[in-house]
Amino acid sequence: MASLKVPTNVPRPEDDAEQLHKAFSGWGTNEKLIISILAHRNAAQRSLIRSVYAATYNEDLLKALDKELSSDFERAVMLWTLDPAERDAYLSKESTKMFTKNNWVLVEIACTRPALELFKVKQAYQARYKKSLEEDVAQHTSGDLRKLLLPLVSTFRYEGDDVNMMLARSEAKILHEKVSEKAYSDDDFIRILTTRSKAQLGATLNHYNNEYGNAINKNLKEESDDNDYLKLLRAVITCLTYPEKHFEKVLRLSINKMGTDEWGLTRVVTTRTEVDMERIKEEYQRRNSIPLDRAIAKDTSGDYEDMLVALLGHGDA
Amino acid sequence: MASLKVPTNVPRPEDDAEQLHKAFSGWGTNEKLIISILAHRNAAQRSLIRSVYAATYNEDLLKALDKELSSDFERAVMLWTLDPAERDAYLSKESTKMFTKNNWVLVEIACTRPALELFKVKQAYQARYKKSLEEDVAQHTSGDLRKLLLPLVSTFRYEGDDVNMMLARSEAKILHEKVSEKAYSDDDFIRILTTRSKAQLGATLNHYNNEYGNAINKNLKEESDDNDYLKLLRAVITCLTYPEKHFEKVLRLSINKMGTDEWGLTRVVTTRTEVDMERIKEEYQRRNSIPLDRAIAKDTSGDYEDMLVALLGHGDA
Repeated sequence: MASLKVPTNVPRPEDDAEQLHKAFSGWGTNEKLIISILAHRNAAQRSLIRSVYAATYNEDLLKALDKELSSDFERAVMLWTLDPAERDAYLSKESTKMFTKNNWVLVEIACTRPALELFKVKQAYQARYKKSLEEDVAQHTSGDLRKLLLPLVSTFRYEGDDVNMMLARSEAKILHEKVSEKAYSDDDFIRILTTRSKAQLGATLNHYNNEYGNAINKNLKEESDDNDYLKLLRAVITCLTYPEKHFEKVLRLSINKMGTDEWGLTRVVTTRTEVDMERIKEEYQRRNSIPLDRAIAKDTSGDYEDMLVALLGHGDA
Repeated sequence: MASLKVPTNVPRPEDDAEQLHKAFSGWGTNEKLIISILAHRNAAQRSLIRSVYAATYNEDLLKALDKELSSDFERAVMLWTLDPAERDAYLSKESTKMFTKNNWVLVEIACTRPALELFKVKQAYQARYKKSLEEDVAQHTSGDLRKLLLPLVSTFRYEGDDVNMMLARSEAKILHEKVSEKAYSDDDFIRILTTRSKAQLGATLNHYNNEYGNAINKNLKEESDDNDYLKLLRAVITCLTYPEKHFEKVLRLSINKMGTDEWGLTRVVTTRTEVDMERIKEEYQRRNSIPLDRAIAKDTSGDYEDMLVALLGHGDA
């Protein structure tokens, strides 16, 4: 499911660190060399390279990259090189700090990461920012938005496959009642979405679909034209049940915009390459009738394009 | 701070397991022997004894204890023998299941356990009950109570000592405004209590006390005569800032009742013996002018009394 291509014989981290150091030296920077190494190493390997680089050259590899690279290419390399939990912590912080708050990022992280990974994100967040993710989210939101986002990032969701069909039926009924009443921020409505396991919620939403003739997101869509809260609510449901559809949509909107949304594009590629990028590529091709790498290549250029396309698994490792 | 007395030369777990097995054999049970072993081993040692016992006799030690012992003594030995995270998971489950819901137990666990221990409780809860603690708490509460309890058990609180004095001042002002308006379940009021680190909250509440002339709990007390929500709110604040005062109060109320409340008594002794029981004993003596072990001995009897008093550090290990 991951699109990452790692060579069969991976160089020793000492050699990778030395090559990277060379790529930074002299006149100009050797971006091709940087891509050929970093875009073809998995998280554990990148982490080792960082350790060796710091021990050998007495400088954090991320600091060196920051000095040498710039703009979209820099952001892609930096995000990719970070440890996944650190990366999510960084993206979460950014999304509560930015003047245009991007709550989709928080929804993605809260709803698509496995429970234990989300916990590691919280630990990384605390280590880096000396605060909890929960207090920052709570402080930077209010009203219905807080009511939805705070439990989403807080709950340690159960991940077993156990499904209680009785419960699925009774909670589908509650969800349907609340949707009928347009009570989208009702306590029980939010409780069900934010605390139930994905397996249980899946059963509940399937029952909803069977019993009431429509998927819940379809019902929500009819109401959500100008309503950011409802759009976010639909993203929550999609992230919990069909994450690849959510990521396809973020990519589609990023690429099709007048002027590409590089932040969305970079975020999805760097966070999903090692997880489910192959499935997202399939979904993208189905929905847009063009392969994702070709769409990206059309919309981006230079080292940035090369980096993204390498992460998507194009070419040799 | 712990009251537990462990002998200088701890027997091998194999020997302890064998002695326990002997204590269960033949006519009757040797309760004294059980106490002399289990009440003088720390959590890691008890866990080893359980493993060895299971491997040797092909039976869970807890099951064997369950068959041999009864009533209050059984509950004390069982709770004590459990691994702390398992024990808290068990107590949490009980408190959402019981027909008399005991929300104080949840408040205690959420507010007095270090953040990482609370996380382990959630893991133990899921392993045992195939659900998350969050979904059970959410399902079994409603209204203001849910609004307070759910984030309390959900948040992974930051535990650093960093304090932002500006924030302490501004949030003390918010708390005071809400108390003045009697808006005790206001979103921001609950947000501050449930998401801030204990150090930050301590600074905020100290500022409250300095600036507005009263500790917040004093202001809440004036209103809380018949209000269970306010009583719980005060317990939250006490647990977060002076846990030993909370536990002293639970013990005092348990012992002074017409008919001792053995559940409260057993819970506090088994959960705090390895943590801060010495401090709780000091607090108890100060507040009741009688040593805790004497008060317990007056109110209980037999093996149950012996077990509790041994945990309080009385006599030799």
